[in-house]
Amino acid sequence: MPAIEALYQQLCDHARETGVLSSIESLLGWDERCLLPAAAAEYRADQMTVLSGIIHARQTEPRLGDWLAELAASPLAADPASLSGATIRQLKRQYDKKIKLPQTLVEELTRTSVMGQQAWQTARAGNNFAELAPLLEKTIALKRQQADATGYAQCRYDALLDDYEPGELTSHVAGVLADLRNELVPLAAEIRESGRSPDRTLLRRRYPVDVQEAFGRRVAAAIGFDFRRGRLDVTAHPFCTAPGPHDCRITTRYEENYFSGALFGTLHEAGHGIYDQGLPAEHFGLPPGEAVSMGIHESQSRLWENLVGRSRSFWEHFYPAAQQAFPEALGDVALDDFYFAINDVRPSPIRIESDEATYNLHILIRFELEQALLEGDLSVADLPAAWNEKYRTYLGVKPASDSEGVLQDIHWSAGLFGYFPTYSLGNLYASQLFAQADLDLGGLATQFAHGQFEPLRAWLATKIHHQGQRYSAAEIVQCVTGAPLSHRALMGHLRGKLGSLYKI
Amino acid sequence: MPAIEALYQQLCDHARETGVLSSIESLLGWDERCLLPAAAAEYRADQMTVLSGIIHARQTEPRLGDWLAELAASPLAADPASLSGATIRQLKRQYDKKIKLPQTLVEELTRTSVMGQQAWQTARAGNNFAELAPLLEKTIALKRQQADATGYAQCRYDALLDDYEPGELTSHVAGVLADLRNELVPLAAEIRESGRSPDRTLLRRRYPVDVQEAFGRRVAAAIGFDFRRGRLDVTAHPFCTAPGPHDCRITTRYEENYFSGALFGTLHEAGHGIYDQGLPAEHFGLPPGEAVSMGIHESQSRLWENLVGRSRSFWEHFYPAAQQAFPEALGDVALDDFYFAINDVRPSPIRIESDEATYNLHILIRFELEQALLEGDLSVADLPAAWNEKYRTYLGVKPASDSEGVLQDIHWSAGLFGYFPTYSLGNLYASQLFAQADLDLGGLATQFAHGQFEPLRAWLATKIHHQGQRYSAAEIVQCVTGAPLSHRALMGHLRGKLGSLYKI
Repeated sequence: MPAIEALYQQLCDHARETGVLSSIESLLGWDERCLLPAAAAEYRADQMTVLSGIIHARQTEPRLGDWLAELAASPLAADPASLSGATIRQLKRQYDKKIKLPQTLVEELTRTSVMGQQAWQTARAGNNFAELAPLLEKTIALKRQQADATGYAQCRYDALLDDYEPGELTSHVAGVLADLRNELVPLAAEIRESGRSPDRTLLRRRYPVDVQEAFGRRVAAAIGFDFRRGRLDVTAHPFCTAPGPHDCRITTRYEENYFSGALFGTLHEAGHGIYDQGLPAEHFGLPPGEAVSMGIHESQSRLWENLVGRSRSFWEHFYPAAQQAFPEALGDVALDDFYFAINDVRPSPIRIESDEATYNLHILIRFELEQALLEGDLSVADLPAAWNEKYRTYLGVKPASDSEGVLQDIHWSAGLFGYFPTYSLGNLYASQLFAQADLDLGGLATQFAHGQFEPLRAWLATKIHHQGQRYSAAEIVQCVTGAPLSHRALMGHLRGKLGSLYKI
Repeated sequence: MPAIEALYQQLCDHARETGVLSSIESLLGWDERCLLPAAAAEYRADQMTVLSGIIHARQTEPRLGDWLAELAASPLAADPASLSGATIRQLKRQYDKKIKLPQTLVEELTRTSVMGQQAWQTARAGNNFAELAPLLEKTIALKRQQADATGYAQCRYDALLDDYEPGELTSHVAGVLADLRNELVPLAAEIRESGRSPDRTLLRRRYPVDVQEAFGRRVAAAIGFDFRRGRLDVTAHPFCTAPGPHDCRITTRYEENYFSGALFGTLHEAGHGIYDQGLPAEHFGLPPGEAVSMGIHESQSRLWENLVGRSRSFWEHFYPAAQQAFPEALGDVALDDFYFAINDVRPSPIRIESDEATYNLHILIRFELEQALLEGDLSVADLPAAWNEKYRTYLGVKPASDSEGVLQDIHWSAGLFGYFPTYSLGNLYASQLFAQADLDLGGLATQFAHGQFEPLRAWLATKIHHQGQRYSAAEIVQCVTGAPLSHRALMGHLRGKLGSLYKI
């Protein structure tokens, strides 16, 4: 083997072993959130700290920098979309980012994040924003330092966004989200003024938990989540994680008196899981075996949850089974009433309770506010008022309190700046990809109505999942749909579905 | 802080961090045996390999040897039963053992163990001992090398026994087990000839699994297993592990048509768990926070399973609840008939199906045979015949095949030589400790009949659990019971209980 090939092999072995340790970290996290006895939380934190210390040390080893410099200049990196090219490029990107952050800043960010999350709990419970404010100011100052240390193309926010949506630019996202806002705010108003609304109470009837679980498993398996290579468990705040190439774990939570929470939650997490299960197992732990971005990951969950799971054709197939499973709750409910209920649009002050359409306005508000905070255009003291003003303008609602307003999300307290827009990017990508799949596969609705979901899953696997990180999110969308990211597909989808439901 | 104190602190921090990594290994093992999707087993092996490599490297770091040499000669090690004395002594013992084994031998042992276990599966399924024989010969040769590398007091077997029962000598165990055999073989014969036997079929009636689980949890909690610091889950081959000081996980398995398996299995594992939960949490990962030996660990499980769980007074308390839980199966069964059934003594060729009394003869056979194999007094080719001959002499039974005979256990194929006697040591220690507790606490039977198990748990916690590894197993038994290990308490217990049941 030529020396450069041997060096590349050495790099891959090193990264793969780091990946093994990261996968153990995933399992510790999963276990903590699903099973861990409460009294064991403190020692679990010790386990996470020791392990992440070992991982960080491996990821910032100076010899790794030497290897990457040599390999980046070699013919193995010439084609950026080749296996070796993508691997070297992405590992170098991660390495360069990591070594630019001073150890003291990393530690300060971690400590402030832990303290911020604790302070958030108390502030939210006591409806006391002032209690959180000093830590939030500190967090913002640290995030500025982080952005300055890693560097950015146009603005500080770019540096933070890049952690979740590699290569994406704030100005670009802002443009697309502004287009979306300009059409979404009027749509929401039209719906409000339509005078129509479904009977949502039918989703709040009695749905026995064990039947919900069996039904959820059946639906998740039907859309392509492979239970031989995964699990479904119960947790308080549902998530998906893959602590191994053939070990994808999705989670949900059940309420006896609510149908939508568990079912659409399961579809959402199964969408994430189907992506993880579609990544090339042989490259697990290396860039070609990992998800390309948070936005693309979210697109997969939103696609199965909303574009598929809230479509009429999906329920043409599954509704008879649902009625059989829940005869008490759904026996007397017509499909159209059920379909309208699961697509109810109703502005709410709470993001996680919002619907497919207005959800994006919640994200927009956060995206605009966090940029202003970071750039110093908005002070922490003025944040609650700014929050409420945006909710009035975009959604026409007024939070009853800061707890139901600016304090509702943990993200900022945990230092997650730049994360929110990936939720809306997910919705945008999902609609754009779905519209293309519909064209390519010749009418998905008919397939869904016949219970055929495999063509769509296989299409996504080929176009997205199998690619790992060989292309950027923007490249994938351009390549697969022939167009750059835009608000049009999402608006087309929402206008189409909601237009006929609300007769607007 | 004086330099030697600082060095001791450094040693403890190092060991504690290694303990953190070992605890993660425990969690990986638990997850593998309880939850892991089958397809994920291979990557789990990679995770275990990477982690155990990191642990091994830490445990054999040369600087550790320097620290230990300096500390062992310091005043901190002067009192071997002090916290620092025990810590230094035990860590030095473990370190010295580890560095004496050449890396090539460690790897060869691991590889042969994996291959041996695979070959065992096939050999057992096909009833073909010859297929396993070559690997078994290789394993024995490697175990001899291991014993020669680590050194021993009197015989090679001492070196292997020391891995599971630190400081114990083969000659000593052999003496006690011979005493036991000399009384147990006649007792088993008397029982066979008594003409009496209980109706065991009542334990094979229908016991709904969910009710078994609820009843098992109730009983485990009643004897002192703390579910706030632990879990009970389902697995194929039950075990107990503690991946944290407040995270003890016991497991069991349920059969709808068998009461004893899950219930006594749960009591057994809860006994292990109560020991783990009683170890000083503040020393978790250091010798004063760890179990003293396999034999003592087993004594705790056997004590709760047999001495408590198969006693008449235990069921005087729990039988009404059992009848209420299983009205179909136990409604018409008198307590005495139930009590006789769970104490049935019946020689069997299968160890794991055997009863409280004859179980020890199964162990004796293995203990004698593995010594002979190791010393070269018995060839692998002659093993099946020797096995059958001992079963004829000690138990009066003849295995139907090698699969039900010499191939029934995985231990030897996995390289576990020196492990078997700890099962009988557990029974011996359990009886001896129980007899002393009965004296100290003034009649346990009356307490059990009133549902009072806390005095016994607290007594065990003070005398055994809280001590960690500050004393050896032999020292603990001598100190707590005022006498060295002996067969008398176990024989007294068996003669007493079985004498009245079988009227002999």
